[in-house]
Amino acid sequence: MKIVLGIFFCLSLLSLSHASVVDFCVADYTAPNGPAGYSCKKPAHVTVNDFVYSGLGTAGNTSNIIKAAVTPAFDAQFPGVNGLGISVARLDLAPDGVIPLHTHPGASELLVVVEGQICAGFVDSGNNVYLKTLEKGDIMVFPQGLLHFQINSGKSQALAFVSFSSANPGLQILDFALFKSDFPTELITQTTFIDAAVVKKLKGVLGGSG
Amino acid sequence: MKIVLGIFFCLSLLSLSHASVVDFCVADYTAPNGPAGYSCKKPAHVTVNDFVYSGLGTAGNTSNIIKAAVTPAFDAQFPGVNGLGISVARLDLAPDGVIPLHTHPGASELLVVVEGQICAGFVDSGNNVYLKTLEKGDIMVFPQGLLHFQINSGKSQALAFVSFSSANPGLQILDFALFKSDFPTELITQTTFIDAAVVKKLKGVLGGSG
Amino acid sequence: MKIVLGIFFCLSLLSLSHASVVDFCVADYTAPNGPAGYSCKKPAHVTVNDFVYSGLGTAGNTSNIIKAAVTPAFDAQFPGVNGLGISVARLDLAPDGVIPLHTHPGASELLVVVEGQICAGFVDSGNNVYLKTLEKGDIMVFPQGLLHFQINSGKSQALAFVSFSSANPGLQILDFALFKSDFPTELITQTTFIDAAVVKKLKGVLGGSG
Amino acid sequence: MKIVLGIFFCLSLLSLSHASVVDFCVADYTAPNGPAGYSCKKPAHVTVNDFVYSGLGTAGNTSNIIKAAVTPAFDAQFPGVNGLGISVARLDLAPDGVIPLHTHPGASELLVVVEGQICAGFVDSGNNVYLKTLEKGDIMVFPQGLLHFQINSGKSQALAFVSFSSANPGLQILDFALFKSDFPTELITQTTFIDAAVVKKLKGVLGGSG
Amino acid sequence: MKIVLGIFFCLSLLSLSHASVVDFCVADYTAPNGPAGYSCKKPAHVTVNDFVYSGLGTAGNTSNIIKAAVTPAFDAQFPGVNGLGISVARLDLAPDGVIPLHTHPGASELLVVVEGQICAGFVDSGNNVYLKTLEKGDIMVFPQGLLHFQINSGKSQALAFVSFSSANPGLQILDFALFKSDFPTELITQTTFIDAAVVKKLKGVLGGSG
Amino acid sequence: MKIVLGIFFCLSLLSLSHASVVDFCVADYTAPNGPAGYSCKKPAHVTVNDFVYSGLGTAGNTSNIIKAAVTPAFDAQFPGVNGLGISVARLDLAPDGVIPLHTHPGASELLVVVEGQICAGFVDSGNNVYLKTLEKGDIMVFPQGLLHFQINSGKSQALAFVSFSSANPGLQILDFALFKSDFPTELITQTTFIDAAVVKKLKGVLGGSG
Repeated sequence: MKIVLGIFFCLSLLSLSHASVVDFCVADYTAPNGPAGYSCKKPAHVTVNDFVYSGLGTAGNTSNIIKAAVTPAFDAQFPGVNGLGISVARLDLAPDGVIPLHTHPGASELLVVVEGQICAGFVDSGNNVYLKTLEKGDIMVFPQGLLHFQINSGKSQALAFVSFSSANPGLQILDFALFKSDFPTELITQTTFIDAAVVKKLKGVLGGSG
Repeated sequence: MKIVLGIFFCLSLLSLSHASVVDFCVADYTAPNGPAGYSCKKPAHVTVNDFVYSGLGTAGNTSNIIKAAVTPAFDAQFPGVNGLGISVARLDLAPDGVIPLHTHPGASELLVVVEGQICAGFVDSGNNVYLKTLEKGDIMVFPQGLLHFQINSGKSQALAFVSFSSANPGLQILDFALFKSDFPTELITQTTFIDAAVVKKLKGVLGGSG
Repeated sequence: MKIVLGIFFCLSLLSLSHASVVDFCVADYTAPNGPAGYSCKKPAHVTVNDFVYSGLGTAGNTSNIIKAAVTPAFDAQFPGVNGLGISVARLDLAPDGVIPLHTHPGASELLVVVEGQICAGFVDSGNNVYLKTLEKGDIMVFPQGLLHFQINSGKSQALAFVSFSSANPGLQILDFALFKSDFPTELITQTTFIDAAVVKKLKGVLGGSG
Repeated sequence: MKIVLGIFFCLSLLSLSHASVVDFCVADYTAPNGPAGYSCKKPAHVTVNDFVYSGLGTAGNTSNIIKAAVTPAFDAQFPGVNGLGISVARLDLAPDGVIPLHTHPGASELLVVVEGQICAGFVDSGNNVYLKTLEKGDIMVFPQGLLHFQINSGKSQALAFVSFSSANPGLQILDFALFKSDFPTELITQTTFIDAAVVKKLKGVLGGSG
Repeated sequence: MKIVLGIFFCLSLLSLSHASVVDFCVADYTAPNGPAGYSCKKPAHVTVNDFVYSGLGTAGNTSNIIKAAVTPAFDAQFPGVNGLGISVARLDLAPDGVIPLHTHPGASELLVVVEGQICAGFVDSGNNVYLKTLEKGDIMVFPQGLLHFQINSGKSQALAFVSFSSANPGLQILDFALFKSDFPTELITQTTFIDAAVVKKLKGVLGGSG
Repeated sequence: MKIVLGIFFCLSLLSLSHASVVDFCVADYTAPNGPAGYSCKKPAHVTVNDFVYSGLGTAGNTSNIIKAAVTPAFDAQFPGVNGLGISVARLDLAPDGVIPLHTHPGASELLVVVEGQICAGFVDSGNNVYLKTLEKGDIMVFPQGLLHFQINSGKSQALAFVSFSSANPGLQILDFALFKSDFPTELITQTTFIDAAVVKKLKGVLGGSG
């Protein structure tokens, strides 16, 4: 037994000190961030709770006009995914609920339908449209940066989880970019050929100015 | 109207030809693959069905000794994710079901509990163990390449979807690597300090040789 | 001199064979392509002309309704940039010319104004709008995947070169995705809140169906 | 109208807070930098001017012996390109002007001739030389890390813009590395076979020591 | 000579200031680190000693039960490799010495035998075992994240250098993860099928708890 | 026992088929290669010998004028490293042996001195020179793309292994690029300020033309 106990001491030579472990880089929101993500929390302060997030356990509130809610678990909400190239969000869609046309500038998206039926689609650079009605358990992938949407096409509540190939995929909602911003109406008209009257009406609804 | 119709012709100059669209690279399983993934299917042959996969819609068969099943949707099964840096799998765990200790050599993993209760954990390079009992809707991230496991810790069936930061995360199950392979018993004993008798017993069960 | 000549022979040991040179990977359009780009032309067939492209030397035809033209030199046109993470395009804008709102799903863009004056802008995920009137010699960067546009805001012809952080940046023109495609009008309306009448009018102009 | 206004409130759920926007990472020169670039300026302090740079609008002074000037817009000069994998520089070459043999250790380069005529070339690992006389509007790509040069081969002033596949491509000018440094003459002679007398003469001219 | 001296002044235009040199990013252990590595030491403080490491010059102490020692030169020990995607370690194995089964979660490994004879092996995701007896001068590569080991199979001392495709490859030793941690015995048994008695015995030897 | 045997069958569900294993991508030299490397050999044909290379076991012939030899194990020689981001070479230097000034366009290099004494150095973009005399066991890192050299500064044979952060680092030897190529003498003179007579003399020695 004396011999075997020796393993303990000798193997210590093989072990890297805790301080230098960089299997992961849990986000430290108080330090600077950079192009690759947030600074790392000191390993000694990391706990299992940094790798677990409970914010997706409750359905988002869909009692609204789009009858839908998106709840993100990106690196800004979930420190454990920082630097790991993955994140997730929860989609709740009441009947007739809609996630409006949008892009994720820095990530591909993979949707899993957990409840209900969802009609989803995206458009590619060649203006080809890819549409599909997805049932429970179906998955669909939306390649990086392309316009896409999800609609509850069933009669009951729909629930989906969408994962991303980045810890911070970004989210640009077309209608918000145009009509909930201070994008000057004249420039919108010039660059989209949508009538100024239509632009102004949607800005009135969504709160845009200019 | 004649003027406006002109937009059609002029804007054509801006459109890239369909043949060169590489917003995505749907896997062509008949052509060579390389370090970055499979060759791309010709864009003209791509349809929405390449981006949709229904293989995760049915529960895996958990009527077995581990009372669990894993159903992958990696690039080898789901051609649309090829080259996009993301994939997914379905975990079904009956009561007492276990996904044995394993690693994904090339990806981080993000688990979403959809039904039931799961006890999950991983170990880092500093031999710190991170354990958590996850309820429905909880998510947990397992950093790239580290040993981890999932156990159904509830009384009912558990269902989870796990997404990966790679279209081909790989899967190395510890027990299979050791005991369902032709890894010579003597070498296993030398490199793990597990008694030869234990190794041989587990090899007998799992079908390993050597 | 005999000694010095020896350098010739000995140094040969240091030289990698031509066949294995992979300083570059000139596109071979006849072989399969993959997620990282086109297959490589055999080094023996590569010439300087693979690295030079003259297609941007002539102004594009701006005698059209948008009074603008885009001429790309991406990997599909210019084999030498394959795999090098860079490409370029030429923008010609007659007075009042417009490059409509668009994104590049897989690349950031850097614009250099060579002639004239250009009003350019982009919108970020937080719906902030960044607008600037650029004079000759000014440069502006458009971060990856975000909606942006360019307008000739001067009285003379404008010329700009735009380079990209990818050999194949992609190009999704908003109006084309919506109105020059077979994106069903009903779905557009549901996912953008733009009236069906407006959608149909623009589809009539641009040639969309559905 | 009351109903439609509801969109405003519900859609707010979809919007990521401004603080977490990381569509870009404008360089904060006062915070630490890392392998991926500079730390990010707080989003609230970012303005359009971070994405615009006017330093390339004026011709560099070519009244010198090489009759040439290089003006960079890398991440150290142009904060908006930080982390975006792209940057640019302006080349001015008077008649007979020369950009001496150099490499960019971390980037490929793409040159666009805007005025005049430029003779450019590079050498690959197999010692193949690629030379071309470029006219206005021609582009040429120089693969990462290879020795290359540009010479004004016309009778008038030449102007080119060169973009890079990195926000910080680096620039190693061969003559400077050897003759404007404190690289000991003896070591230069040993590692290049250039006579010590030649080395010393060029050091005298360029200001090198050792 | 007056003319030639002009080169000195004109070429200065081409030189990037020292402050912005980022050919490298020597680790500053006092500043925050991030997903891409440590912050960079200010260029003015960098010396050649940051790029040289002498810690591998002495044989590790192999007077222990595994008769082996590993000495790392990762970014935590060797500041010059920070951000460069490479690192190295020294392996000393006395006769019968063993580097137990382990993985590097974030890197591939390349071993060079410098002295003696080493039996090495790895297992892939398909449970295929790759074994080889390596003689002096032989090299072997272990793909990223897979279980592998090294054993001195000769009669004399063995020495090897192993390099990694990352500045921080991580190191997860199977026996330490299981038996030198606080991984609860019951969970180990459930997830590896190794008897609790065996687990407890090895924990007793290696110092694990739970 | 019957129950335990059940593990065999159930766990089979977890195993990915051999055909889709992509833990590695052993080079298939007969199929096309792309920007990310060679095509992958079919997994069924892969053996341990693909991951082992014996070509570095013998000293290179240093009976030549530079008294040195370089023996590479890059992806073109060693199929197992394809796509893994690592490779290695052996340096043999007789007394007074020299590896002339060179760069690796696509990789950082890490040198380990195994026998003898080596004087090594590199120059950065700011024209700072980093020189060091390395003893047996010392390591030195050369950041990507920078000019560097190695000289045997001891009295005995020197041996070193150099590993790279790429499976195909490339190798551009300055003297070969200039003087063993068909780089026209006039252009060399113009772009390096080295006298034509010196260029012609070195071309005569090394076999260059032009």
